[in-house]
Amino acid sequence: MDLVTLADIRVAAADIAPTVLRTPLLPAPWDDALWLKPESLQPVGSFKLRGATHAVARLDPAARARGVVTHSSGNHGQALAYAARAAGVPCTVVVPQGAPEVKIARMRAFGARLVLVAPAQRLPEALRIVAETGGTLIPPFDDRRIVAGQGTIGLEIVDDLPEVDVVLVPVGGGGLASGVATAVRALRPSTAVIGVEPELAADAQESLAAGRLVPWDVSLTYRTCADGLRTGPSELTLAHLLDRLDGIVTVTEEEIRAAAGRIINEARLVVEPSGAVATAARLFRSGQLPVGRTVAVLTGGNVEPTLLADLVTTAR
Amino acid sequence: MDLVTLADIRVAAADIAPTVLRTPLLPAPWDDALWLKPESLQPVGSFKLRGATHAVARLDPAARARGVVTHSSGNHGQALAYAARAAGVPCTVVVPQGAPEVKIARMRAFGARLVLVAPAQRLPEALRIVAETGGTLIPPFDDRRIVAGQGTIGLEIVDDLPEVDVVLVPVGGGGLASGVATAVRALRPSTAVIGVEPELAADAQESLAAGRLVPWDVSLTYRTCADGLRTGPSELTLAHLLDRLDGIVTVTEEEIRAAAGRIINEARLVVEPSGAVATAARLFRSGQLPVGRTVAVLTGGNVEPTLLADLVTTAR
Repeated sequence: MDLVTLADIRVAAADIAPTVLRTPLLPAPWDDALWLKPESLQPVGSFKLRGATHAVARLDPAARARGVVTHSSGNHGQALAYAARAAGVPCTVVVPQGAPEVKIARMRAFGARLVLVAPAQRLPEALRIVAETGGTLIPPFDDRRIVAGQGTIGLEIVDDLPEVDVVLVPVGGGGLASGVATAVRALRPSTAVIGVEPELAADAQESLAAGRLVPWDVSLTYRTCADGLRTGPSELTLAHLLDRLDGIVTVTEEEIRAAAGRIINEARLVVEPSGAVATAARLFRSGQLPVGRTVAVLTGGNVEPTLLADLVTTAR
Repeated sequence: MDLVTLADIRVAAADIAPTVLRTPLLPAPWDDALWLKPESLQPVGSFKLRGATHAVARLDPAARARGVVTHSSGNHGQALAYAARAAGVPCTVVVPQGAPEVKIARMRAFGARLVLVAPAQRLPEALRIVAETGGTLIPPFDDRRIVAGQGTIGLEIVDDLPEVDVVLVPVGGGGLASGVATAVRALRPSTAVIGVEPELAADAQESLAAGRLVPWDVSLTYRTCADGLRTGPSELTLAHLLDRLDGIVTVTEEEIRAAAGRIINEARLVVEPSGAVATAARLFRSGQLPVGRTVAVLTGGNVEPTLLADLVTTAR
């Protein structure tokens, strides 16, 4: 399989510079050897803007006119809507019913056309729209452009903290972990890139152990509060992870919520549960991790106000 | 009176670089012409680290050994404790009873010796400790080093957004506004620097109108929820504001709380009420402000979890 390269990621970095925030590394106030990479501060509240912006930038003029299409419960949909609007490209997002209201409202605010369907219908409906409109499907993670775009986070981490020893990255579909592992391994092979999953959606861990895709049913993965990590890897992302990831650990729901509380109250960053899993690994699973200067990618901050209030006051 | 100069601020910028975060300008998701300067992301959760770090850096070896002393309800005390620890200098903070618990706990965590007193006793007690120990008093704002240190925010704003038209800055004791106005006026005279105060603690507005200090009693200023803005200017800071500030507006308690809710829910930054007043002016008092590309300084994010939960869920 043709894997993404460092050169691909450098092309993406040039594409995204005008639209995407160059996030700083923030020292964690409670841990002298931990830095947070706050992708929650992107204008759409998550790292997904990177891949989406790169994918839109690579369209030819005819494809731009026909527009882009995706399916997403929220963060990728918001990102694609924002990237498409910034580039003047029409955008349609197929949204599974039950997606967080705050994410739906924002996709609409960014000018996307939304189509709500039952969760199992998301991909078929997106493909139907592509067939009907001639639009380009921009999947949430199973795409070389998306992997390359998310990999720009790895470039920035090594640039800002050249002596980094460990990078902790949440794994859902695996696009982010694939891209970051590609960049970091190429630039600094001695740095360990470790994936982190919710214990209740550990399909990537099981797939890595088996050396092949072991999909988990949504009835299992939907148990985790980390709604951005309920999908499993694809053939493309698993190939990257098998080749380049140095390990993968899991965290419990309680650990995710406690980490979110720490991040909000002590680092003063609003984080969604999915965005807190890498920090949770550092807080609660350090015995399973390499030692040294560690960066945790804080992937997103799109959280309903009631859940945010709950995380702040109870999950400490 | 000898006012702080751009050259003083450049010296401060060199002093603070190793310790203080170079905060990014973040586009406000709800306003295409507004950027937030999130000083809440400093390791101590507020801009106060800048002045404190510069003041500690300027001590001679003998003074370093005798230590630093201040009085503060929290943010300056945390900042001085952190800056002193980073420089290996002993630190004592006199804290008025009733200061937020979260701020007290953090000052202690940064290794400061704390002395709790009645609010009116804060300055006399600090002076007594200085007399006893030979330590150096580092006041919260009435100090040229503090003004110069806070002014580094102005340097960074002009550096990151050279075409900035308006800078909105909260005014409590006035050290921040004095420094920012000094830097911005020197670098870009066409940019307006506007102070923002709570209506319930508008002592700087009244002093500016009178052309002399008009102190408000603490029984008045303690009505505002913006606990960092309850103090009034000093002769030193008022002289800077009279010479360099382009205007001052006030905001209500409801506006402060609503702005805090917007910042937390939409910009995904934890902010304390004092830190939200500049954004409140942009949201609710734009008719009183110059038009154009605007930066709001978000001064701090040290907020009790229960108040944070309340701001998130009710103040929208």
